Amino acid sequence: MDIQKEMIGMAKAAKKASLKLAVIESAVKNRALVNMSKALWAKRNYLVRENSKDIASARKQGHSKAMVDRLILSNKQIKEMANCLLATAKLKDPVGKVMKTFRRPNGLLIKKVRVPIGVIGIIYESRPNVTSDCIGLCLKSGNAAILKGGREALHSNKAIFTILRDVIRKTPIPRDAIQLVTATDHKAIDVLLGQDQYIDLIIPRGGEGLIKSVAGKSKIPVIKHYKGICHTYVSDKADTKMAKEICFNAKVQKPAVCNAMETMLVHKKIASRFLPAMIKDFQRAGVEIRGCPRTRSIVKNIRAATPKDWDTEYLDLILSVKVVDDTNEAISHINSHSSRHSDTIVTKNKKEADEFLKSVDSACLYVNASTRFTDGFQYGFGAEIGISTDKLHARGPMALEELTTYKYLVYGKGQVRR
Amino acid sequence: MDIQKEMIGMAKAAKKASLKLAVIESAVKNRALVNMSKALWAKRNYLVRENSKDIASARKQGHSKAMVDRLILSNKQIKEMANCLLATAKLKDPVGKVMKTFRRPNGLLIKKVRVPIGVIGIIYESRPNVTSDCIGLCLKSGNAAILKGGREALHSNKAIFTILRDVIRKTPIPRDAIQLVTATDHKAIDVLLGQDQYIDLIIPRGGEGLIKSVAGKSKIPVIKHYKGICHTYVSDKADTKMAKEICFNAKVQKPAVCNAMETMLVHKKIASRFLPAMIKDFQRAGVEIRGCPRTRSIVKNIRAATPKDWDTEYLDLILSVKVVDDTNEAISHINSHSSRHSDTIVTKNKKEADEFLKSVDSACLYVNASTRFTDGFQYGFGAEIGISTDKLHARGPMALEELTTYKYLVYGKGQVRR
Repeated sequence: MDIQKEMIGMAKAAKKASLKLAVIESAVKNRALVNMSKALWAKRNYLVRENSKDIASARKQGHSKAMVDRLILSNKQIKEMANCLLATAKLKDPVGKVMKTFRRPNGLLIKKVRVPIGVIGIIYESRPNVTSDCIGLCLKSGNAAILKGGREALHSNKAIFTILRDVIRKTPIPRDAIQLVTATDHKAIDVLLGQDQYIDLIIPRGGEGLIKSVAGKSKIPVIKHYKGICHTYVSDKADTKMAKEICFNAKVQKPAVCNAMETMLVHKKIASRFLPAMIKDFQRAGVEIRGCPRTRSIVKNIRAATPKDWDTEYLDLILSVKVVDDTNEAISHINSHSSRHSDTIVTKNKKEADEFLKSVDSACLYVNASTRFTDGFQYGFGAEIGISTDKLHARGPMALEELTTYKYLVYGKGQVRR
Repeated sequence: MDIQKEMIGMAKAAKKASLKLAVIESAVKNRALVNMSKALWAKRNYLVRENSKDIASARKQGHSKAMVDRLILSNKQIKEMANCLLATAKLKDPVGKVMKTFRRPNGLLIKKVRVPIGVIGIIYESRPNVTSDCIGLCLKSGNAAILKGGREALHSNKAIFTILRDVIRKTPIPRDAIQLVTATDHKAIDVLLGQDQYIDLIIPRGGEGLIKSVAGKSKIPVIKHYKGICHTYVSDKADTKMAKEICFNAKVQKPAVCNAMETMLVHKKIASRFLPAMIKDFQRAGVEIRGCPRTRSIVKNIRAATPKDWDTEYLDLILSVKVVDDTNEAISHINSHSSRHSDTIVTKNKKEADEFLKSVDSACLYVNASTRFTDGFQYGFGAEIGISTDKLHARGPMALEELTTYKYLVYGKGQVRR
């Protein structure tokens, strides 16, 4: 079939299904999620078999080990996927929640109520678990989902999708509430991104290249889960032992993720006391340091940071280090170079902390804690569809509530406008 | 100066100013708003003089009387603008409001706090009062504003802007927190819409053509204040006297606005009882009726509605009328043809009303009241920057709260991620 027709057909069907899904009761959605969880585990051998086709072809094409690792579905990953669906079933359904109620002088009663967004398109790479995680979150929040995974995981995604869709068929949930794009033609995405009549939101999940390309082409609103250039500022009023632990954790515990620290800022007053031991610790852990001139005058034999370093998300054991004159310089450096994801200050001074929290324009700001906590699970949201670096609709960790919008319900007794 | 350079310069300056404005206290902003209000009224003769240049040139160019009327700034309009600024000063400042506070098992204390969006670009047509209304709302909500008004109101907009900026200069608010684009080159807008690095949100205000063109070109998120194809559904369980009043009000009281009714749906059981008198009332008020076949078999000599009518925002004394079999058909017609703005059901049956409220996917849904109430002032928001027909970030009437986003502030005691 013609790819344009096929994609428009999917978008239309999703829209239709979304209107039905929006009014389906929590109990029905939860039962479906539990059965989906069971079905994934019951059919694990089939999943592993289908997954092995993707693995074989990735190896054949000479993909990196890291890339192949991300593709793997063993019993461990399947159990995790099943558990995620089960956990999602247990979360509170945001749909129908009354956010506000107010009465007007003319007697009109107005309720602001949470409703699903409608149809959500998810465009993602590699990890096949995204397929079931996103289906679970969209279903629970009452949204129809159109999924377009990477070509490298097509067999795995198809297998997961088939199992979940078979469960849906046995429920009152319309089957088109979840759909998987199996076309590998690149045009499929372009057509999808033009269906603003039917699709309400696009969430791209993957590398910077994917997100930029999707955001550039889309006629549909995109929430970008973008890069994290996260900072730790060690004030002269910091508990330096605490600062050392926080900085080390933020850089080393899992360097390949968006909430890892990329730049460390240190107040000039404590730089010569703090930096030598700290940098030694980093170097022992295999971290390459790129320093500003003042850093390099304190610790010898480290590479010079170039202007580009302050704007780079390394996602690796590399750290840029800058000595600053004061908190104002730290704030201004962060507001100029941060990706508005997560930044932290280490200080014992409350006034200084408040100044930092007020002035830095990022989704998640910390005092005396590691940036690594920016994460839906760590925030207690029970799940996560991503971490928004946009400022509209949702910021920071996004979970069920962020997958809803609202409508106003107005109850009258015949009121007309005078 | 080169227009590209000029616009990028404005966007950069706005970004810088927005970071300062975000932390300015309510009292300072309120004092500025009060002084702006006073200054507009004090300089009313200057405003009227500058406005007369726009009026003269609009007349010379043969613009319609309606268009010229929208341009006029007499003492009456200036008083309204001044009052709007004063009212905005009295509204509660949303910035800094703690939306949620929660503590995690590891001791982290998380606060979700309202903050300004940042820099807002407003692109609008005709009415010069938009200049001061939007400056007031943006300033109060802590956002820097870049305004681009229509060429036809340039003298008026410049005069208003000059007065307001002179007030700003005498306050701690950075002067670039408000900026007016005076270039008439169309390229100015194109360049502005590409500055996603500095501008966080675009709000176009004007006709469908303007909004479509802005949304099509923008790299920055746009909240669309789009057309209103609003419906009234008269159920067979309606109080027909009430229904008549609501329908008449929704169509006739102010037909040129987005929350006026464009299509009336009537249950088949009451159609022959309800329609003749209702349509006679409409015709007496000068409303042209376009009916479905069943409507035309009940009331003779009315024009036939074409498929296009169901999707048309008349903004005029024209109404399309359709007889439906039941509430389901009404809901499905609305979900297919409504612009998701405002729709109402007239019924005495609570269950039916709930079904309608649950199933219709629009920003504002009414039971037994006129759609004409969709309006920030009528909802008690004290002001309005528009009515969003989008589903992300904000839906329906948008005021101060909708001009904010949030950030998470996380207070730790040295917590690191294990």
